[in-house]
Amino acid sequence: VTNPAFSIPEMATVWSPESQARRMLEFEAALARAEARAGVIPSDAADEIGMVCREDWNDAVEILYSAAAEAGTPAIPLVEMLTERVKEPARGFVHWGATSQDTMDTALALQIQDGLDLLLRGLFAVGTELASLASGHRRTLMPGRTLLQQALPITFGLKAARWLALVSRQMIRLGEVRSRSACVQLGGAAGTLAALGTAGVTVTQYLAEELGLAAPLLPWHTERDRIAEVAAALGVVAGAMGKIAGDVVLLAQTEVGEVVEDGDESGRGRSSALPQKRNPIDAVMASAASRLAIGAVPVLLGSMLQEHERAAGAWQAEWEALPDLFRFTMSAVGHVKSCLAGLRVEAARMLANLDAYGGLLMAESLTIALAEHIGRYQAYLLVRQATGKARASGRDLRSIARADTAVTAVLSEEALERALDPTAYLGSTDTYIDRALAEFSRQEPPRGEQQTQDGGQVDG
Amino acid sequence: VTNPAFSIPEMATVWSPESQARRMLEFEAALARAEARAGVIPSDAADEIGMVCREDWNDAVEILYSAAAEAGTPAIPLVEMLTERVKEPARGFVHWGATSQDTMDTALALQIQDGLDLLLRGLFAVGTELASLASGHRRTLMPGRTLLQQALPITFGLKAARWLALVSRQMIRLGEVRSRSACVQLGGAAGTLAALGTAGVTVTQYLAEELGLAAPLLPWHTERDRIAEVAAALGVVAGAMGKIAGDVVLLAQTEVGEVVEDGDESGRGRSSALPQKRNPIDAVMASAASRLAIGAVPVLLGSMLQEHERAAGAWQAEWEALPDLFRFTMSAVGHVKSCLAGLRVEAARMLANLDAYGGLLMAESLTIALAEHIGRYQAYLLVRQATGKARASGRDLRSIARADTAVTAVLSEEALERALDPTAYLGSTDTYIDRALAEFSRQEPPRGEQQTQDGGQVDG
Amino acid sequence: VTNPAFSIPEMATVWSPESQARRMLEFEAALARAEARAGVIPSDAADEIGMVCREDWNDAVEILYSAAAEAGTPAIPLVEMLTERVKEPARGFVHWGATSQDTMDTALALQIQDGLDLLLRGLFAVGTELASLASGHRRTLMPGRTLLQQALPITFGLKAARWLALVSRQMIRLGEVRSRSACVQLGGAAGTLAALGTAGVTVTQYLAEELGLAAPLLPWHTERDRIAEVAAALGVVAGAMGKIAGDVVLLAQTEVGEVVEDGDESGRGRSSALPQKRNPIDAVMASAASRLAIGAVPVLLGSMLQEHERAAGAWQAEWEALPDLFRFTMSAVGHVKSCLAGLRVEAARMLANLDAYGGLLMAESLTIALAEHIGRYQAYLLVRQATGKARASGRDLRSIARADTAVTAVLSEEALERALDPTAYLGSTDTYIDRALAEFSRQEPPRGEQQTQDGGQVDG
Amino acid sequence: VTNPAFSIPEMATVWSPESQARRMLEFEAALARAEARAGVIPSDAADEIGMVCREDWNDAVEILYSAAAEAGTPAIPLVEMLTERVKEPARGFVHWGATSQDTMDTALALQIQDGLDLLLRGLFAVGTELASLASGHRRTLMPGRTLLQQALPITFGLKAARWLALVSRQMIRLGEVRSRSACVQLGGAAGTLAALGTAGVTVTQYLAEELGLAAPLLPWHTERDRIAEVAAALGVVAGAMGKIAGDVVLLAQTEVGEVVEDGDESGRGRSSALPQKRNPIDAVMASAASRLAIGAVPVLLGSMLQEHERAAGAWQAEWEALPDLFRFTMSAVGHVKSCLAGLRVEAARMLANLDAYGGLLMAESLTIALAEHIGRYQAYLLVRQATGKARASGRDLRSIARADTAVTAVLSEEALERALDPTAYLGSTDTYIDRALAEFSRQEPPRGEQQTQDGGQVDG
Repeated sequence: VTNPAFSIPEMATVWSPESQARRMLEFEAALARAEARAGVIPSDAADEIGMVCREDWNDAVEILYSAAAEAGTPAIPLVEMLTERVKEPARGFVHWGATSQDTMDTALALQIQDGLDLLLRGLFAVGTELASLASGHRRTLMPGRTLLQQALPITFGLKAARWLALVSRQMIRLGEVRSRSACVQLGGAAGTLAALGTAGVTVTQYLAEELGLAAPLLPWHTERDRIAEVAAALGVVAGAMGKIAGDVVLLAQTEVGEVVEDGDESGRGRSSALPQKRNPIDAVMASAASRLAIGAVPVLLGSMLQEHERAAGAWQAEWEALPDLFRFTMSAVGHVKSCLAGLRVEAARMLANLDAYGGLLMAESLTIALAEHIGRYQAYLLVRQATGKARASGRDLRSIARADTAVTAVLSEEALERALDPTAYLGSTDTYIDRALAEFSRQEPPRGEQQTQDGGQVDG
Repeated sequence: VTNPAFSIPEMATVWSPESQARRMLEFEAALARAEARAGVIPSDAADEIGMVCREDWNDAVEILYSAAAEAGTPAIPLVEMLTERVKEPARGFVHWGATSQDTMDTALALQIQDGLDLLLRGLFAVGTELASLASGHRRTLMPGRTLLQQALPITFGLKAARWLALVSRQMIRLGEVRSRSACVQLGGAAGTLAALGTAGVTVTQYLAEELGLAAPLLPWHTERDRIAEVAAALGVVAGAMGKIAGDVVLLAQTEVGEVVEDGDESGRGRSSALPQKRNPIDAVMASAASRLAIGAVPVLLGSMLQEHERAAGAWQAEWEALPDLFRFTMSAVGHVKSCLAGLRVEAARMLANLDAYGGLLMAESLTIALAEHIGRYQAYLLVRQATGKARASGRDLRSIARADTAVTAVLSEEALERALDPTAYLGSTDTYIDRALAEFSRQEPPRGEQQTQDGGQVDG
Repeated sequence: VTNPAFSIPEMATVWSPESQARRMLEFEAALARAEARAGVIPSDAADEIGMVCREDWNDAVEILYSAAAEAGTPAIPLVEMLTERVKEPARGFVHWGATSQDTMDTALALQIQDGLDLLLRGLFAVGTELASLASGHRRTLMPGRTLLQQALPITFGLKAARWLALVSRQMIRLGEVRSRSACVQLGGAAGTLAALGTAGVTVTQYLAEELGLAAPLLPWHTERDRIAEVAAALGVVAGAMGKIAGDVVLLAQTEVGEVVEDGDESGRGRSSALPQKRNPIDAVMASAASRLAIGAVPVLLGSMLQEHERAAGAWQAEWEALPDLFRFTMSAVGHVKSCLAGLRVEAARMLANLDAYGGLLMAESLTIALAEHIGRYQAYLLVRQATGKARASGRDLRSIARADTAVTAVLSEEALERALDPTAYLGSTDTYIDRALAEFSRQEPPRGEQQTQDGGQVDG
Repeated sequence: VTNPAFSIPEMATVWSPESQARRMLEFEAALARAEARAGVIPSDAADEIGMVCREDWNDAVEILYSAAAEAGTPAIPLVEMLTERVKEPARGFVHWGATSQDTMDTALALQIQDGLDLLLRGLFAVGTELASLASGHRRTLMPGRTLLQQALPITFGLKAARWLALVSRQMIRLGEVRSRSACVQLGGAAGTLAALGTAGVTVTQYLAEELGLAAPLLPWHTERDRIAEVAAALGVVAGAMGKIAGDVVLLAQTEVGEVVEDGDESGRGRSSALPQKRNPIDAVMASAASRLAIGAVPVLLGSMLQEHERAAGAWQAEWEALPDLFRFTMSAVGHVKSCLAGLRVEAARMLANLDAYGGLLMAESLTIALAEHIGRYQAYLLVRQATGKARASGRDLRSIARADTAVTAVLSEEALERALDPTAYLGSTDTYIDRALAEFSRQEPPRGEQQTQDGGQVDG
């Protein structure tokens, strides 16, 4: 039994021992084929190896990972088991010229692609929810808050648009990282491909073609910037999810009450002891997952300090840290998606909060209106005085302003009303929402589920 | 299938959902008993609740953790299921006055005790190996190295003694942390124990007695310094393991060759492709586990920033980060233990390395010997000149010194030999080894396996 | 010009190059004295060395730190400069038998004591403010909040008491860490004190006495658990400050309004553009400093992985990370102190917030009151129904309950009122506050400023 | 006095309060000009504001940063001081429509450009050294090492080429990050630019043009992915430097001796006490700086979790963490550059190390040679037997092989010699070196020093 709170099954599958074993076998099959194409090994041997690789290995996985603890890597027992299963004369050509890290790193590249595809699909779903919120609440007034103090009116649509733009940028970034990290590893025991003589570069190219990956300029056994870049990008995605989740938690506070997570009243987030509560469970779990994901990033950055041609500790730390990072990031994305999908926006409460403090957050607007007539500095002094009076007396800014002859001398009642009307003081809000929607509409919908599951198939 | 490379089964068990569920049920049973003792609930109700808590719940765990994802915590569905199973009239007294975090945090305190006991047992085993190495190699000369450059002679026994002292200090620290973190959580929904009227403090005291834990002065739902202190202490243990493992990796280098991890030739660490290799697998995995453990610490420190009376994200992040930290730290301890248990110390190679560079690392000793006669500064200049000559000519320091009349004028041949004898230049090495052994001998052997497994029994 | 936002001058001074140089000179003077006492060097030489160490070195500091970049450590040029300044025949006895890391680490131990004293003084000041808030607001009702949802009534005094208990525990912890980290380093170039012959242990003991520090069992050049423990403890302190600061930020929200940071209206936290705002600047900066401090901890834990007898990178990273950690932690403590000292508690607003949601957070209290008569489960169902009605109708729980014959059948009007009275539903609040106050009163007031500044004097 | 060990003066300057103040003034001047162009403020006002911004402000910086501690940001006092200095009627148009975070974030974008330019210049210098080493040592044989065990022959040129490819990729990455992070911030108090009416987007565009930055689609006050991406990229650069530095430290070990850092015998890295030592100071300091830089990354990722429209703590933490990250990363780059520039490659020692273990690391080559004749599996068994004999007897692989009739039956003496010749077993080494050199040659040389210093000039 595994705690499912931080685990999305599809992502757990990508990083399961079974998937890793399958990906390693795909590498071995593709390597044999590539070497056959390059004339390094007989074509019959490649066929035989490929056939055995495509057999059902699920029963072997447990044995394999037990042996891995002894061998220091699962690739070593996997190659041994594969060698045993392949018949002579093909047997001698298994894993020809490769090292165990070639097997594991190329499998890793394939798993990373799968993981990034799942994340991209999750982010697209998040973006879809946000686009709906951004356009649907384009005009839903609410207080903008700086340092958690009410500042100026905004709309909930603008807030959603900012979240959306953040998500679109993450999709763009992950797309870039995906193409950069999608490269095979093939270097042999010390990164020279010595056992392949002069055919090393050609075999690498063919191998990449077989697997639908890129061929790197050089082997990268201990130059882990590609892995670190993936890690960093996921950390940023996790941070983005944490930002959105954190805002939802704050908006859902009893005293703010501007959103309720469980809009469909399904019962999620109810407390058995305290029936009045409506906890924003998904936002809370997304926030937790975000922190956990970010925690894995420095481990992977620190793991760039790898010794010589194969690291003694730093590489091995990647084996846990990177899957964890994918799992936690996916969990954050998934919880944000659920949170947004069921979000009920309490527009009336937003408006009430906006009005609750005597119109003080229209002070800047009033200043601007006055400034046209008496200069900005005089206007600022006048409004500061008025807000001081409002605060001291508990009266609202409107009544203070109406009673102030210095104000009424230059602003007609109509002009004053306009200056105190939040809907007239939204600046570029509409444009920003349009831009965020347009940018998201340029993001490609993610590939179908089936394709991702089968991404990087050995044989098509 | 789980990758066992970073997982010690006993520690995995401590943090399994099954164990957590069992510990939560122990809390519920003990709470009922404590409340009965305090006259808050009927004694019969406590008996009935205790009986149901001691039933076999294993089948329920999967359902429970699925429900947890909805509820936001496994304690909520557990209390619901328990309530259903308990018969009336006891049913109404289940979880009386408590909140779900009381259940989870007290279970956590029990799990932490179990985890710390396993770590203490592991550290004792490591210490036992080190004590043997320290006394057995008290006089095994080797080069001391600073910034990875040979500096002065030391003995391998001294190195092992330093590691041992490090381990003893960790045992002392974990013992302190154990007593400090072993405290119940009981505060009710907002930390006032309001539902218990005036009996809150008494019930807390009885609850602590029932569970063999301490009663805290106040509930600590969002004051997580105890958890953070546990995390920090484990981070230091992990760092200690990383230090030892790192030194082993360096000593096992081909060009150094002073230790071989697999002294019993069991085949561990052999490379199938490169038969000449003897990889220090356990040291490598310990180093990786150490990094992973340390990576969890800042997540738990950052999780101290918890909101009001229950956190929205930070507490939930603990649920993954703390078990991971225990697992990785235990893995590091376990791998260091295996590494040391099979370590072959190549004393001849150590001596050869000491002698390989022309006796240059006896330069300080020669300086001291000369200084008694000609002052330290003159001695320093003389020896610097001699080492320069040695380096330039490729001759050893002994022959240079013998041919230097400024040296022979004050040092007899016997005195010169003594000055160049590493065994005569070990300073306080013996005393240090004795002290490290004595300090470790003061550490209590860990409690038996059975006790740890059953620690914090529900009924005694 | 340095940005003072995250810097408390006293703490900056402790970690300045000037202070480090002074502390290193104290080590050199004390070492000479200890060696003279042990008969290792002439007493006259120790006097001469001590005299030069006590001269004014401030002019030399800049040169010294420029040279440090070349030498890899400031201790090497310092010893060279000291050697030049000391007259013959004492010159040859400068730094006798020691290595540069002995000088730096012992200076570090002294700086750590100074830093911990400043932190303890800061925490005592924070605790003093909190004790005042805890006792002064013992009965100031406010909503307790879990997952940022109103849950049950608490008092602001209880919240302050929980913060206070957190602070007291940190004082206790820092006191322990202080005694453990206050130990000299003396091992010579490879940790054997070979140059001191058999006198090593005696000299170490005398050195410790001279400096008012402890003598360690063994040198600890690359066993850095003491430093890591200091780091971890500071990380926990920083987390504690972040907890308090975070709560203040949340309480100061416009919609919550339960505290105002700048109670004395000094103008701090005002926004020039938005005159209505009252930003909780100190809480915000404390929160920032807390994050920065915690960020330094994993660097120092990771720096435990030190090679052989002197590390090539990990030790050097401590030189920046540890001072930063002290500076940021002190900044967090200082900002929390300022925040609390000027905090205005808006008791009326707290009460209003408590009442604002129809008395729903008295639901548990009503359940308990009913349970005595009709059993807990029936009571729970009844109250859940009532809160549902209250929520749906917008009416308050009181009026719903009064109109419910199932309630009035068992509860008199008086009993109902009592069940809905928050002041009657505070459980152990008073006891908890008393305990927190009592525990803090057991904390020793910090030593006077002068003593801290002069802590570890070279000559007494 | 500041410890210069981790500080490159040019980078320190970029992040000094003086530079920040200057950049903020550039923003204010450019904003005024942009607003004048858009017809929002009078052109004369923009001229006056620009003139004052270009005055000498250095004397004001200290006052400004003292005031910043009170105000919570240096932008607030700066705008106040600027407003005072600007004459009426322009005074009222200072900072028109902007918020203090607009000022600070745009200044930050400019500082980031400067910082990235310095890093790019540093990386280019590192790459230039590496290109020279890669081509100069193309054929310098050395042992390749996996898990710090000798594995197969490589050349030092290949190792340098791998480092070089790593550096080239970082230059490409930083270039991308530079273009993405180079965008202005302009949103006004709550991100709507309400005070600019409908002109917000136009003013933003003009502002971007004035400053040579991009205009973002939306304000990004609390969507900090751009900053986090910069941080992550620097963390990867730091990791890359740590990789190179770590390898140098390992190669410089006494027992390996394949490189000496201070090739020009300038005296750097000498130990005064131990004249035989040659410490790789620059590599050590680069390693330390790398760790410190990586430590700042999670702080900045964690700081993405910002509240609503302006963060209460997370944004403020950036103010220290990002400059620290730039400083430490630059320090790592600078130390690696110095280390490589003075590196002496001990080719003879490399060859000696390669030969020192009886030719065992030619085992794979021999296997390949035999496999052509007897199949890979038979070959593997034969060679494993031979290496076992070699290890047991202390004889070298060549003599064992020559005496083995199973070998001599299929390999002529010439063929055997070829199989044991490391120069004939380098695989794709040459191609890899060529590729790394070619890729680096495609990197643009960094812009001149003057341009970087003046990058983003206010007036052209």
